[in-house]
Amino acid sequence: MAVRQLNLELPPKDGPTYPIIFADGLYQHLAEHITETTIALITDEHIAHYHAELVVAALASAGKTLHTYTVPAGEASKSLTTYGSLLSAMLQDGLDRHSAVLALGGGVVGDLAGFVAASFMRGIEVYQCPTSLLAMVDSSVGGKTGVNTPEGKNLVGAFWQPKAVLVDVNALRTLPDHTFREGAVELFKHGLLADETLATAFKDPRFTPMGETEYWLELLPRAVRVKADIVMEDETEQGVRAFLNLGHTLGHALESYSHAHTEVGYAPLSHGEAVAYGLVFAAKLSAQRGYADETRRCLEFLQWLKPKPLHDSLTNETFDQLSSYLYNDKKAHDKQLRWILLEAVGKPIIVDDIHQTELQAAWRYLLANTQGLPV
Amino acid sequence: MAVRQLNLELPPKDGPTYPIIFADGLYQHLAEHITETTIALITDEHIAHYHAELVVAALASAGKTLHTYTVPAGEASKSLTTYGSLLSAMLQDGLDRHSAVLALGGGVVGDLAGFVAASFMRGIEVYQCPTSLLAMVDSSVGGKTGVNTPEGKNLVGAFWQPKAVLVDVNALRTLPDHTFREGAVELFKHGLLADETLATAFKDPRFTPMGETEYWLELLPRAVRVKADIVMEDETEQGVRAFLNLGHTLGHALESYSHAHTEVGYAPLSHGEAVAYGLVFAAKLSAQRGYADETRRCLEFLQWLKPKPLHDSLTNETFDQLSSYLYNDKKAHDKQLRWILLEAVGKPIIVDDIHQTELQAAWRYLLANTQGLPV
Repeated sequence: MAVRQLNLELPPKDGPTYPIIFADGLYQHLAEHITETTIALITDEHIAHYHAELVVAALASAGKTLHTYTVPAGEASKSLTTYGSLLSAMLQDGLDRHSAVLALGGGVVGDLAGFVAASFMRGIEVYQCPTSLLAMVDSSVGGKTGVNTPEGKNLVGAFWQPKAVLVDVNALRTLPDHTFREGAVELFKHGLLADETLATAFKDPRFTPMGETEYWLELLPRAVRVKADIVMEDETEQGVRAFLNLGHTLGHALESYSHAHTEVGYAPLSHGEAVAYGLVFAAKLSAQRGYADETRRCLEFLQWLKPKPLHDSLTNETFDQLSSYLYNDKKAHDKQLRWILLEAVGKPIIVDDIHQTELQAAWRYLLANTQGLPV
Repeated sequence: MAVRQLNLELPPKDGPTYPIIFADGLYQHLAEHITETTIALITDEHIAHYHAELVVAALASAGKTLHTYTVPAGEASKSLTTYGSLLSAMLQDGLDRHSAVLALGGGVVGDLAGFVAASFMRGIEVYQCPTSLLAMVDSSVGGKTGVNTPEGKNLVGAFWQPKAVLVDVNALRTLPDHTFREGAVELFKHGLLADETLATAFKDPRFTPMGETEYWLELLPRAVRVKADIVMEDETEQGVRAFLNLGHTLGHALESYSHAHTEVGYAPLSHGEAVAYGLVFAAKLSAQRGYADETRRCLEFLQWLKPKPLHDSLTNETFDQLSSYLYNDKKAHDKQLRWILLEAVGKPIIVDDIHQTELQAAWRYLLANTQGLPV
């Protein structure tokens, strides 16, 4: 079994460290990486179908006591209601402060199970076992956990670092195409932030869920390295961690807008699709200021991604309609929006004095260059 | 205005530090200690009646933007339901990552508001402003926050340290007698753990809610010092923080038992009453092992406290009935109960090999010496 390992060291210096382990066939060996004997396996119905049997068998044969909690697949499970139900079920099953949570799934399961672990008896260990590309390269690493409320996404939660992140590369094989592409957006974003190789990966024919194991065993750690380096410097997003929001400021607004406009004929944008549009927007804002011009590459990526089109009601004249969605972002402080721009690939900066005229110009550029996208 | 201040330095060395400030008339000066401009004031109906007007006026006149959230008084507010409602209300009111929570109340408000702060947008600052003696000397310091679930007390929550603890000694004046006595139990316990002066304080005629300000300005910091010293060594209860559970192992069981047996004629024991019985029990366990014999003093304290009597069904023969309540304690690990004993006043130890015969003997002692208590 080929294995790669990164270690994430949290600030301050000599703070806790945790390993991020990549291997093919890791699920069969999970127990070797888990010290606790009693485990709450939290997963969703979709993932359970593909992976739970293997994981449960591997852990049981290693003598672990396992309690499995399966939530419905999808974002709706990231709620305070599901959160409360999981906590109650775990309490009724007699789990205690020495039990651990194993989060087996994509971003939803990882965020939900992470917050459960953060608050069960004031915090127990959690192992993140990401099954989607998005979770592998982004959400499973860095300790952000949380649930949604009617007021917005991820507004309730905790910073709760996993004891280990355990990535079985083979889980990629079972990913539906749209789920794979969702993760590719964050991987591409990591490339723009710090690693040219990642920024061009989408052009590689091996960049598919069926790509060679060796290829993915190189690429995944590269992508996680970007995130880990940033988290190591700034665990709780006081500073550079905000770089990871490249493309997300407009992206979140587009995502919210599309969810609020789901009349017949309009499917809402996925998070990844919205962020991919947001990356073009951020690239244009950067270029307008005389920084890097990555607009072409971001458009190429968008063509590779084949996102759903923007809602027809979004035109040159209607950027203002997005404003209320922009300013609802929880990272907005005192209505001063912060944008992540690129001085160059590998050199992001935080800018908070972008003028309305700059936004309007980038918006017109985005519309003009994405309306003819092949769908 | 006379002021006393302690600083609590969290581990590891050079970790965050926060002040615990004691003064008479501190509420008028609260704003001087709060750096954030937008504040979620969380309190309960009872406390709001006595203190909210003063606090709100003081903060408003200092230019703070204030949102007030008042929950019903009593333990029932420490629920996931109230927790979710508070979070939603704060989100709807536009509070953000730069807002702070001000917890104005006793233990219930402090625990609930602390957990809200711990998880609102993954954690915002909280100021603990304890109004009860219990909250002043115990629960407001040390960062334990949480809510109850149907499965038990404090089973969901977080370690979330306040940015400051702000104690207005004048709040003691409004305390009902039973609330004052509840806090006196923890203060007495702190005395047994570390400070002879605190262990005899209950005999002092000034030890009443109406005692001189100067007296309380000396005594309260002494009591908090005990807790702070322990928390500084062990924030998340991996070791010595367990000392604070002196009297609580049996206490929790007695409290749960009494809540499960509330037929006509039996009011449930308060937490403090139950712990006071537990202190006698722990003192007897200690004496039986040849350690300190503090049984006499614990019985004297019990006489001062005048707790409700133990349930009639608890007899020499029925100690086993308590067992299921004992082992339900969330601190029990693998059914191995840990007891805090006293080698001497100021010298607690953790013991996990207490035999059933020792428990039975201490139980008989407790019953024999408390059934004739003046009520």
